[in-house]
Amino acid sequence: MPRSVGVVGLGLIGGSLARRLNDAGCRVLAWNHTTRPYEAAAAQGIACLPTLEALAQARPEVLVLCNPLKAMPEMLERLKPVLDDATTLTDVGSVKGMVREQVRAAGLGERYVGAHPMAGNERSGWSAADPALYDGALWAVSVDGDTAYERFQAVAGMIVGVGRNRMIVIDDATHDRAAALISHMPHVVATALVDELVDSPERDVAVALAAGSWRDMTRVALTDPDRTRAMVEEDAANVEALLRRMAARLSGMADALHAWRSDGPDDGGRTRAQREILRFFAAGQPFRDYKAEAAAGEAHGATATLGLGDDWREALMASARRGEHVVGLADARRVAVQRRSHLAD
Amino acid sequence: MPRSVGVVGLGLIGGSLARRLNDAGCRVLAWNHTTRPYEAAAAQGIACLPTLEALAQARPEVLVLCNPLKAMPEMLERLKPVLDDATTLTDVGSVKGMVREQVRAAGLGERYVGAHPMAGNERSGWSAADPALYDGALWAVSVDGDTAYERFQAVAGMIVGVGRNRMIVIDDATHDRAAALISHMPHVVATALVDELVDSPERDVAVALAAGSWRDMTRVALTDPDRTRAMVEEDAANVEALLRRMAARLSGMADALHAWRSDGPDDGGRTRAQREILRFFAAGQPFRDYKAEAAAGEAHGATATLGLGDDWREALMASARRGEHVVGLADARRVAVQRRSHLAD
Repeated sequence: MPRSVGVVGLGLIGGSLARRLNDAGCRVLAWNHTTRPYEAAAAQGIACLPTLEALAQARPEVLVLCNPLKAMPEMLERLKPVLDDATTLTDVGSVKGMVREQVRAAGLGERYVGAHPMAGNERSGWSAADPALYDGALWAVSVDGDTAYERFQAVAGMIVGVGRNRMIVIDDATHDRAAALISHMPHVVATALVDELVDSPERDVAVALAAGSWRDMTRVALTDPDRTRAMVEEDAANVEALLRRMAARLSGMADALHAWRSDGPDDGGRTRAQREILRFFAAGQPFRDYKAEAAAGEAHGATATLGLGDDWREALMASARRGEHVVGLADARRVAVQRRSHLAD
Repeated sequence: MPRSVGVVGLGLIGGSLARRLNDAGCRVLAWNHTTRPYEAAAAQGIACLPTLEALAQARPEVLVLCNPLKAMPEMLERLKPVLDDATTLTDVGSVKGMVREQVRAAGLGERYVGAHPMAGNERSGWSAADPALYDGALWAVSVDGDTAYERFQAVAGMIVGVGRNRMIVIDDATHDRAAALISHMPHVVATALVDELVDSPERDVAVALAAGSWRDMTRVALTDPDRTRAMVEEDAANVEALLRRMAARLSGMADALHAWRSDGPDDGGRTRAQREILRFFAAGQPFRDYKAEAAAGEAHGATATLGLGDDWREALMASARRGEHVVGLADARRVAVQRRSHLAD
């Protein structure tokens, strides 16, 4: 656990992290673009600084950028001349490649480790901040060939230091593709479903008949569409590629249904269309098995120790691909990993 | 409320309905393809008959087919020679056009009113049957030009008679298109998302990062894929058309993101791609407004009386399109309707 952490931005994510670190006994310094949360934060023991520059000059061991992504270039420009070399820089942004480029452009690449906690809800601001937001949270930590092990260690120490948080270590591109797959692209799909409903002449009949499946599949389309749009645009290339793949899947299924309708009686695999339809519905089975395993409480395997040498990045990334989570730092060059359920090949 | 109702099939839907009608004081007769649930059903006061023919010959006022859709042709063939003309035939199937065709093929079209209660869960069988499944349920009731008002009245009486159940009256084609839009097509989309994950080389990283949005959007893909496939195949033409529309929406958004990436800085509407992206995210606003209104408890309007003349079908369908639910039968030719939230034009 770092002795001190600086938090930039006391919104939902930053405020919750500041409070959780503070509860865990870490010295927390903070700066926010307005002083509105300062009184409440100070009452909890968080030291609120008047400027971003003053926060940097207080030399926290780790500085966490929890500002909105669009403010990132300005924050980095201001930090550039004042950030002490001893301070490790990290962030909580939902895309990692773009942030690293901006950090590099500000000449701070060597001090940076990317981070993305899987924590959040539909609320925002300090008033919504709650240390419990991080209960059991998994963080994605992104490193590249320039990342020094000590920088990683500082950020990893903060993550496991807040208690029962876990991490996987990956590179920026893998993170951004995975986030596009399980979050950014599905947000577009949910929005498209809602757009389709609104366009339908049957919309009021359809909405009357809507049940659980519709409610679940469109819930994320109810969040602020500007926030969703920004998230999608920040990961645009990956989302674009996945939307094309999804469009091809849906067209393919439409073609198969079309052929199936003219095929006549279904014997469950006689014609090409029947086989395609069966394959479409069977293909997701490894995910169903994974969820069933998780639901049966078999998700958490034993904890093991992973020794890290000079190829520590590759070793940690391979561990992530095996479905392991880093749950602790055993010593300077060893981490504790826990095997989780993973999707069979 | 009919004096007596016959229920064919004591599974989740039929068993729950039988129990609820029985609790409401209706005389309930039942037949099931196995006698397994008979002892428990009889203990509740449900009269279990040894054959489907015996059930028909007991002349219930309404006979509800709660068997699986694939058993429908056989049930109808067996009922054809024995069903008393005084008995009104209805069902609870999730598609209505196909069932009416089968009913007509058996020469029973004149006695038939389609019905589809929006009730269900992932369980099945008599052991899962629970009268509470129908708490506040909305039924789609489908009629056509041949439906006699008295037949509609018998089924409507059963629906409002089970207590706090509501209905909208529509034609088969509208029902099947609406059901494809809010349920059958989204099930395919959820399945495609899961297939995409399983196909991804990043699947284990992605699944580690998966949070609420992914969980909600793929929940329905966890149900028995054979059940989903059967549901999709039964409404294949409508699902096919909607999948093509969704594929076009997703491709269109992919194209817009592609153009946007080469457009340079976004000023929120300067280029065609920017405008398209803004429009995509704004188009669903009427649904967001509808949900916000419903969440604010403003969903239920006042109750009014709707008089029904010779054009009762058209009057009831227009009421459904206005977002009204039939909540009671005022007298022989008037129904009580309640205005609900609806999506603005």
